[in-house]
Amino acid sequence: MRVGAIVAEDGIWHGGDLAMARVLFPEAPQPWVDLSTGINPIPYPLPALPLSLWTRLPGADDEAALIAAARSAYRVPQQADIVAAPGTQILIELLPRLAPAGPVAILGPTYAEHGHAWRKAGFTVTEAPTPAEAATVVVVNPNNPDGRVLSRVELADLAAHCTERGGLLVVDEAFADFTPETSIVPDLPAGTIVLRSFGKTYGLAGLRLGFAIGAVDPIARLRAALGPWSVAGPALHVGAQALADADWLAVTGAERARDAARLDALLAPHGRIAGGTSLFRLLETPAAPALFDRLGRHGIYVRRFQNAPQRLRFGLPGDEAGWSRLRSALADDAPEATPPA
Amino acid sequence: MRVGAIVAEDGIWHGGDLAMARVLFPEAPQPWVDLSTGINPIPYPLPALPLSLWTRLPGADDEAALIAAARSAYRVPQQADIVAAPGTQILIELLPRLAPAGPVAILGPTYAEHGHAWRKAGFTVTEAPTPAEAATVVVVNPNNPDGRVLSRVELADLAAHCTERGGLLVVDEAFADFTPETSIVPDLPAGTIVLRSFGKTYGLAGLRLGFAIGAVDPIARLRAALGPWSVAGPALHVGAQALADADWLAVTGAERARDAARLDALLAPHGRIAGGTSLFRLLETPAAPALFDRLGRHGIYVRRFQNAPQRLRFGLPGDEAGWSRLRSALADDAPEATPPA
Repeated sequence: MRVGAIVAEDGIWHGGDLAMARVLFPEAPQPWVDLSTGINPIPYPLPALPLSLWTRLPGADDEAALIAAARSAYRVPQQADIVAAPGTQILIELLPRLAPAGPVAILGPTYAEHGHAWRKAGFTVTEAPTPAEAATVVVVNPNNPDGRVLSRVELADLAAHCTERGGLLVVDEAFADFTPETSIVPDLPAGTIVLRSFGKTYGLAGLRLGFAIGAVDPIARLRAALGPWSVAGPALHVGAQALADADWLAVTGAERARDAARLDALLAPHGRIAGGTSLFRLLETPAAPALFDRLGRHGIYVRRFQNAPQRLRFGLPGDEAGWSRLRSALADDAPEATPPA
Repeated sequence: MRVGAIVAEDGIWHGGDLAMARVLFPEAPQPWVDLSTGINPIPYPLPALPLSLWTRLPGADDEAALIAAARSAYRVPQQADIVAAPGTQILIELLPRLAPAGPVAILGPTYAEHGHAWRKAGFTVTEAPTPAEAATVVVVNPNNPDGRVLSRVELADLAAHCTERGGLLVVDEAFADFTPETSIVPDLPAGTIVLRSFGKTYGLAGLRLGFAIGAVDPIARLRAALGPWSVAGPALHVGAQALADADWLAVTGAERARDAARLDALLAPHGRIAGGTSLFRLLETPAAPALFDRLGRHGIYVRRFQNAPQRLRFGLPGDEAGWSRLRSALADDAPEATPPA
């Protein structure tokens, strides 16, 4: 992005873009309560980072430790492979290299970067609830922003649909860490690539760490495309430690689930809770644009959607001050509209 | 790379691979004195890193600050563009997308990852001192490992050679920071992409930060291939601060030049100093394999070359203990061979 850009260069709105919030609401009280992302607001505690992680090229030992922790955390089958990357985004950009020519179905509406990457690579993309005849299918599971979860049987059927047509199934499990029972990784079907993101669950999105899991050959192609040393030394170290910390994940998952329920209770008078995960909730109301403005004027930035003006996605406040400001902003006025029955 | 790998998966030997050093010399005294890289052993002092750099997605403001500092440090012409990446390596992997089909000439011998990336992408690569009829040419300037520098006139001629043939000139200036007069960036010819590396000069190779500089269209293609947020938040912050610190660069450049002269004096009795930069020196001697072994047994790891067994590249010791161990190891025996006249 460039200086002063109000919209990301690719034209896609994203959460976390406080520069846009500042432009839209220049007089909002500071600091911003940023609820526009699905990033855990209470990060994994950063361990001490030996200086050598910064000074040396990322080492084979550090990468091996990260991969071992990730294989265990994600329950990667022995015959499958996994590659680490500096964030999931760059893997999304590389996936079109793995697919045959032909139409791509993205089970949407969902995270817009998937469609954008396939279109940039020259594919015809349809975003629809079913794959129709497309050989290559992308599904975000649990889905962002509505939290829709496909069962393992449904995913296996989708994978069969793709392999029968010589295509590829991509399952983006960016929000599966707190619901491991939704993950297809342990039963990885043939012809399936799973993406996992580190930064959201662990609250460390600036670290840039993500993974692709699949059969040996496509993962080798992704690894070759990335080249050596693509993940920074500190990210290898923090990732290895955090992914091995099952206790933190269990405690944090329970805490975020409680936060999500608390958020639902605050939002319910203002519309229909249309789903979500433990890291974000989706509100549907015809008054969404007015509510977005009201919250923005209170210094609370939430996620709106270019193609769904009735929707707002709320991340979790990270402290009581944030909860309090959200409560006040929501109570500042009568609800914008009567919630649908 | 995998656990226990002795050679990088791509089969290319690299500096900095202490895992290989440990396998080759299991009884070497510890700690290793790693002279196998061209990385400045005295890093830029890491500034304080606000937690938000880790927790938030890398922000447009932070990226804009980095790009502004890089434009100024590298003297990027106003009409040219620049993109940041998580290390130069991934840019090397992406460059083949910018070139037309046809043979690629790499002015070598040089850094092996260039040839490897083009071959992976299906190009026919010749590594030779002149480009012959190839439309696409890659030159590392100053060259690694021999420090050979092409003049601006020679580079402009090369660029003309490439554009006349509808091709591309890639100039890898990974080691140009201390000799800005060798950089082609201020006079960027048409059809030229310049790579700049952050980690070597600033001694922070684990941070992963590199740049490509060129005309607006090819840089936009690289930016699109990387997607958003490819550089980690801490790397944006450290890079912006360090690249704006001209004093540090000037003082450090003078100090490393003194170190390089000191290294030459130590090495001269053992062979011919065949060139280098302020961050590494190249020694040529028929006794190179024996010297590599002797140094390894003393816990000093230097860089050898798969296709040039008479060469060893020495990085700079970072402290007096390192200098002392190098001096002792070199003096441990008579020189392996009479240096060539």
